[in-house]
Amino acid sequence: MQAEFTVTTRGQALYEITDQIAPWVQESGRSQGLLTLFVQHTSCSLLIQENADPEVQGDLLAYLSRLVPPASDPSMAYLRHTYEGPDDMPAHIKAALLPVSLSIPVRDGRPALGTWQGIYLFEHRDAPHSRRLIAHLV
Amino acid sequence: MQAEFTVTTRGQALYEITDQIAPWVQESGRSQGLLTLFVQHTSCSLLIQENADPEVQGDLLAYLSRLVPPASDPSMAYLRHTYEGPDDMPAHIKAALLPVSLSIPVRDGRPALGTWQGIYLFEHRDAPHSRRLIAHLV
Amino acid sequence: MQAEFTVTTRGQALYEITDQIAPWVQESGRSQGLLTLFVQHTSCSLLIQENADPEVQGDLLAYLSRLVPPASDPSMAYLRHTYEGPDDMPAHIKAALLPVSLSIPVRDGRPALGTWQGIYLFEHRDAPHSRRLIAHLV
Repeated sequence: MQAEFTVTTRGQALYEITDQIAPWVQESGRSQGLLTLFVQHTSCSLLIQENADPEVQGDLLAYLSRLVPPASDPSMAYLRHTYEGPDDMPAHIKAALLPVSLSIPVRDGRPALGTWQGIYLFEHRDAPHSRRLIAHLV
Repeated sequence: MQAEFTVTTRGQALYEITDQIAPWVQESGRSQGLLTLFVQHTSCSLLIQENADPEVQGDLLAYLSRLVPPASDPSMAYLRHTYEGPDDMPAHIKAALLPVSLSIPVRDGRPALGTWQGIYLFEHRDAPHSRRLIAHLV
Repeated sequence: MQAEFTVTTRGQALYEITDQIAPWVQESGRSQGLLTLFVQHTSCSLLIQENADPEVQGDLLAYLSRLVPPASDPSMAYLRHTYEGPDDMPAHIKAALLPVSLSIPVRDGRPALGTWQGIYLFEHRDAPHSRRLIAHLV
């Protein structure tokens, strides 16, 4: 069973999508299974992270932007794929370091997330984007 | 088919769990399939790594602690989620960079690991923890 | 359904394998499903990345070799697992940071990749290697 989801993003940030995905799993009527999420892009990621304190998301974003600075940063002068803007190649690098797909067991009709786990789409580009992800339920 | 496993950790380290998981797969009696492991936490990871030379695990740990230093390190002064200790936010960052889930084909009734591959739970917190992971076998 | 693929590598680079994998999925005759790829090694990775501009792959390689320099680099003097050459332990670290497995939904008989997504084996060692990967189709 598959479905397609669209996530609208407005710049680099983590967008929680748990409430988009979980109801679809519940409506499938299957109590046990395996949920796989896959994002069809190379400049954003999927991530499971703490959804209690929003500062965790802010710190993650801050860390990543230091680990992979914009192409305009002197330390990134070696980059060659730069004609789509200073945030483009760093977005590809972040998309390589973070997951493009997530596999989550389903129990009792729900993704078996831990107490503090939320599912996020992590946007790495500055401009607004419409991101497409495919959900597959076995 | 699903099962829940608990891994007791005593500080930042890699804990091999291959011998916890493989017998469960074998007892399922399925010769072919797909094993998915999922950890229900945001401050530890799952990892497949070399299990021959323990120095590989030590070096991985050393590298990660340099890549993501404790919050007490001056280079991390921008972190805001710090009230749970200097190892907490770095643990979330490491948990973002390393896998929360692993998918491993099953062949001949066993996880089809390569000769040198072992399955590890990678603990990112200093204090002892009891970590819960869910195994799903298709 | 499972198959084994071999990828021959000639030093650190991204090797596109989309055209090795997609025909196998099509020949299976299944229009919908879930494809999992798993690499049986601890010094190379699987990666989904942009396959339009080859400079993206060059920049990724350049970034990774700066993020995880060879063991001969003074900043890596703390490494202990060094007897297999200066590229060995960095290869293990890169293999920890990048995926060992990929899960891709199958639609219309094909891996449901986005327009710019290609599947790559990312070799982290300098010497030529023969890499084995297992494909599982649910």
